[in-house]
Amino acid sequence: MKKIKIVGAGGYGGVGIVELLQQHPEFKIECLVAATETGIKMSDLYPHLTGFCDELIRTPDDPATQENFDAVFFATPDGVGMNAAENELKKGAKVVDYSGDFRFTTPEKYSAYAKFIGRNPTHAAEKLLPKTIYGLPELHPLGPEQNIVGNPGCFAVSCILGLAPAASGNLIAPKSIICDCKTGVSGAGKKPNAAFHYPARYEQVNAYKLAGHQHMVEIEQELSELAETPIQITMTTQVVPICRGIISCLYADLTETTSAAQLLDTYKTFYAKKPFVRVYNNTATIGTAQVSGTNFCNLIVDVDERNNRLRVISHIDNLIKGQAGNALQNMNLMFGLDPTTGLNFSGQCP
Amino acid sequence: MKKIKIVGAGGYGGVGIVELLQQHPEFKIECLVAATETGIKMSDLYPHLTGFCDELIRTPDDPATQENFDAVFFATPDGVGMNAAENELKKGAKVVDYSGDFRFTTPEKYSAYAKFIGRNPTHAAEKLLPKTIYGLPELHPLGPEQNIVGNPGCFAVSCILGLAPAASGNLIAPKSIICDCKTGVSGAGKKPNAAFHYPARYEQVNAYKLAGHQHMVEIEQELSELAETPIQITMTTQVVPICRGIISCLYADLTETTSAAQLLDTYKTFYAKKPFVRVYNNTATIGTAQVSGTNFCNLIVDVDERNNRLRVISHIDNLIKGQAGNALQNMNLMFGLDPTTGLNFSGQCP
Amino acid sequence: MKKIKIVGAGGYGGVGIVELLQQHPEFKIECLVAATETGIKMSDLYPHLTGFCDELIRTPDDPATQENFDAVFFATPDGVGMNAAENELKKGAKVVDYSGDFRFTTPEKYSAYAKFIGRNPTHAAEKLLPKTIYGLPELHPLGPEQNIVGNPGCFAVSCILGLAPAASGNLIAPKSIICDCKTGVSGAGKKPNAAFHYPARYEQVNAYKLAGHQHMVEIEQELSELAETPIQITMTTQVVPICRGIISCLYADLTETTSAAQLLDTYKTFYAKKPFVRVYNNTATIGTAQVSGTNFCNLIVDVDERNNRLRVISHIDNLIKGQAGNALQNMNLMFGLDPTTGLNFSGQCP
Amino acid sequence: MKKIKIVGAGGYGGVGIVELLQQHPEFKIECLVAATETGIKMSDLYPHLTGFCDELIRTPDDPATQENFDAVFFATPDGVGMNAAENELKKGAKVVDYSGDFRFTTPEKYSAYAKFIGRNPTHAAEKLLPKTIYGLPELHPLGPEQNIVGNPGCFAVSCILGLAPAASGNLIAPKSIICDCKTGVSGAGKKPNAAFHYPARYEQVNAYKLAGHQHMVEIEQELSELAETPIQITMTTQVVPICRGIISCLYADLTETTSAAQLLDTYKTFYAKKPFVRVYNNTATIGTAQVSGTNFCNLIVDVDERNNRLRVISHIDNLIKGQAGNALQNMNLMFGLDPTTGLNFSGQCP
Repeated sequence: MKKIKIVGAGGYGGVGIVELLQQHPEFKIECLVAATETGIKMSDLYPHLTGFCDELIRTPDDPATQENFDAVFFATPDGVGMNAAENELKKGAKVVDYSGDFRFTTPEKYSAYAKFIGRNPTHAAEKLLPKTIYGLPELHPLGPEQNIVGNPGCFAVSCILGLAPAASGNLIAPKSIICDCKTGVSGAGKKPNAAFHYPARYEQVNAYKLAGHQHMVEIEQELSELAETPIQITMTTQVVPICRGIISCLYADLTETTSAAQLLDTYKTFYAKKPFVRVYNNTATIGTAQVSGTNFCNLIVDVDERNNRLRVISHIDNLIKGQAGNALQNMNLMFGLDPTTGLNFSGQCP
Repeated sequence: MKKIKIVGAGGYGGVGIVELLQQHPEFKIECLVAATETGIKMSDLYPHLTGFCDELIRTPDDPATQENFDAVFFATPDGVGMNAAENELKKGAKVVDYSGDFRFTTPEKYSAYAKFIGRNPTHAAEKLLPKTIYGLPELHPLGPEQNIVGNPGCFAVSCILGLAPAASGNLIAPKSIICDCKTGVSGAGKKPNAAFHYPARYEQVNAYKLAGHQHMVEIEQELSELAETPIQITMTTQVVPICRGIISCLYADLTETTSAAQLLDTYKTFYAKKPFVRVYNNTATIGTAQVSGTNFCNLIVDVDERNNRLRVISHIDNLIKGQAGNALQNMNLMFGLDPTTGLNFSGQCP
Repeated sequence: MKKIKIVGAGGYGGVGIVELLQQHPEFKIECLVAATETGIKMSDLYPHLTGFCDELIRTPDDPATQENFDAVFFATPDGVGMNAAENELKKGAKVVDYSGDFRFTTPEKYSAYAKFIGRNPTHAAEKLLPKTIYGLPELHPLGPEQNIVGNPGCFAVSCILGLAPAASGNLIAPKSIICDCKTGVSGAGKKPNAAFHYPARYEQVNAYKLAGHQHMVEIEQELSELAETPIQITMTTQVVPICRGIISCLYADLTETTSAAQLLDTYKTFYAKKPFVRVYNNTATIGTAQVSGTNFCNLIVDVDERNNRLRVISHIDNLIKGQAGNALQNMNLMFGLDPTTGLNFSGQCP
Repeated sequence: MKKIKIVGAGGYGGVGIVELLQQHPEFKIECLVAATETGIKMSDLYPHLTGFCDELIRTPDDPATQENFDAVFFATPDGVGMNAAENELKKGAKVVDYSGDFRFTTPEKYSAYAKFIGRNPTHAAEKLLPKTIYGLPELHPLGPEQNIVGNPGCFAVSCILGLAPAASGNLIAPKSIICDCKTGVSGAGKKPNAAFHYPARYEQVNAYKLAGHQHMVEIEQELSELAETPIQITMTTQVVPICRGIISCLYADLTETTSAAQLLDTYKTFYAKKPFVRVYNNTATIGTAQVSGTNFCNLIVDVDERNNRLRVISHIDNLIKGQAGNALQNMNLMFGLDPTTGLNFSGQCP
């Protein structure tokens, strides 16, 4: 069994990977680290884990956290992983970081992102950037040679998977793309705030960050690379009162007259070998519930033929394919395992 | 007091107007009619109305329903009002119809709509069509001379109010418009079905009617008239698990370089005298909750300046400004009353 | 118009009374006071009030808050009203306090309550206690002679109204009473916390304060007075994921064999003249939704005849009959107005 | 691998066992049967099962359903299993029936139940009754000798597990027991109806079946057997707007003075060897969310020491421990497997 350390264990990203690893045949949790809510058992913080994960949550300065592990998940916000990853790599661990710290492969790209979100534009571990990869394995194949991965943002997963076949085929006009994205409330994380207080959220749908959501940077980067031309999107992020789930409606002008059937065929071919992407036509009766609790991305592929406009509806569970599940998919690949290991489940309905 | 009859009293559109008329100083409910759930009191069907509306719900063939009334609300689906309105008008009543029956002013326009939704393209009361009006009073002023009004569709209210200032000023490219619309579940009406069964809807957001929602027809008609050029939109309707509320994200390419501040100014001017439209900039922290239970339409007016693209977020309560409230606003105007009569309330929070 | 001051304007209790007073024919809001979120307009804090209440929220030391008002609502937690009420009374104002500060009419009773909740057992304004009244007007008639009222706790309203006819008739055994109470999340107030963070609350129903909820003290006091014998209840408070509403299932052993019909008759007689209490038999299809947004208390009165046990299901809106609405009902009576003034509305469905 | 047939595959009880069997190491679904929604794949009906269960749903007269299977789950309402079980048993299958058909071991007991719910009091397969068992394995140990089991009702699981240690020790007065039970909406099954239409349920908590819920019969039977004296409960069933989960508050007068610590100790001892029952004291911060998606029953064990009254809060997932999970636990035992096989998971949070 590979020994696993999870940094940021107490947040939703942390508990998500803990839950997934319970059934994993090759990975075993050996160490939980967090900045707050330490000194208690994981199952004290999350009672549903009683009997499943009764490990102590340790502070970063606990010597037990400094041992050698086979793999480390940084389920932490921007700025944590970049300061700690090098040390882990030196000790021989493989690293998946959930934040934006390792999503960019050059200092320039990181710097543009950092400025966008108001952080220091100089990366704390610049020399690692050429070694990292944008961890969307459907687009960036990776294997045992990979030691560090930047796990993508949740909105980005939904948008990039929804647009990649069209962008890579240059089927859409580069400045015509609109991403209308709605997330469940768990996307905001575990920390209470006024906007996500139950009574305030109960009968509320609203747009936010209209000035620009940080995931836009990586979406544009990935799509531009696929299209080999600069792509500039309009993105609107919204919160809907579900717990888990992202539904992104993606629009773009098609560069040539394309039928819905043709586009569907393109997508089916593109994702033929990808176990976690399912492609549907516009009569499918699916929504966020059909991916909730799973690592799948379900795509409805459609063309508004009157206006020759692509319309793709992309559905993921923001905490699994948008976070912990995708992280595990990456880690599986980094150890040469089948990407579906520990992720091959359907979810529950209703 | 004007004597009011409500046809289709038992549905959400019926109970909505009943609730609003409780406090109305000039209108008094005298007759409730429905096709089902008849022979019982309104307050048996809706116990919260006990002491407020204990009227009997009558079948259409009950003689008491054939008396003369000052006004009739047809809170009924397509095809009911067109067969009954003429008789009411002859007896001197003013008529507001909730359905598509009187939203179109020529047989040709009606026919196009009817074909779209799979109904008989010949209107049952063609000669009334030139006398009706599309009942969005912010765009179509009306007064005591008006006797029949077609109340708009709920999505249409949100989209047309959100785009009218831009369309009427020819600020946007006619084929670039995208309406990404999300409605609360009450928009589907009172009749239970599998998609709106509580457990199936609980953690579900989904798009539906991708082949085309019927409200698209009236949106294109109204915007084309305002722009004096044919407008053809892409529209995606979605259901979110709230009870009341529509949030529509509206996108269009601006024909000339326009700043967010300029566009905001255009909108504020356009709606300066309209009591139920509030205009906000892109820093407003509002959502559907801030119009729930009210007749207001709140608009966030924004420009994605990188792409020179208009983005407007339009919020209404689908059952009030999107239905019964707007119907009452119309009826007030048809009797020469202030449009806000009986509608001047803020809603409750949380 | 009477001039009204509201202290604690920014919380749910404050916004509740502000909403109710919008339509009140005799009361006009002249001053809003709060400890936090001051220096902004009420409609900045609560955008749905734009155009309805654009008053500034002032700090307590703002001289404008020290003027003379006709009435003051203390929508504040324990300990605020007791320090400020005397000064208001001296200046001629009538006072309704939402907290426990004035629910007890002797220092001894207050002291017992204060100890229960871990506060200083000495009341800061002891000499006012004999002048106050427990503000449940269905049980304690009050009129213009009354100048200070302690508004009851929300759970207490539901339990006391549900048990008063039985207790006052000595129909139930004093130590057999069980109150199983469930509240919507708004009962916890506006301040975010981990238990009411949307994702944590979404699929959650839980019991809390099993060691004893503070409203138990006033329930026992009131029921004991009605029964003229000490009553000691078992009370379990729970949170359910609705926004507004309390449903309390109340059980007690009947001292004599009583049929459901007899008990129903007793309740109907007891509440015959009370405009806000409706009594139903056990076939009624009502729940919290049928009182949501209203000042009504709906009671289902039943007997488990196999066990000769009373079972009453009591439903209120915790923010209206359980708080601001009941406070207004009291204030109306203190000014000699009809108790239903400004409160005579049915709510909206759905 | 044992070959499994599921009758009633399309309902929530059917999809529940299908989901659980995906990961089961010994059981393999070979045949799905239903009365409606047949001739399509399970994954057409439930798209989340695409790739996990693409079996055809067959009509009962399809010859493929008449083959020999190792085990049959009747996920069907009352009256189906009793007519089909004998044939399955003859063919060598083990049977678990979800309905009331096999919860009673004598014709007399069945007859009392049948009358209670208005069905024919004569059981269609009376001679099987002595061979069946009430399938709550925490109380009724079973092993490979058992061929037919009546799976308990969901409310009954929560109440019986919550009261069994007290009843079996004769710690509580037989006529003092009150079960105040609240269920999520999925407990009502998959078929849409007016009470569970999303808008009607959204802000609704209500009691129902006050005249008597059918699960009361089996609760009284089981508790009476444990106590060896007739027990007669008062039961109130309520619906809360969550999807999954039951929380039952259980009250009873203690026959001797008992501290909370003593009672807790009794419960911990009673359930020491039961893998799916967890016992907590009254400071535990748990609710329905902490068992959602799992086969656990979490009990808070408390005494209201002022009134010497037992109070136990029992939490289960109504679709798992209250239905499919418990059914699988039984079937595991009938094949000599560990009861936790395929059931050893923690659920997801949030």
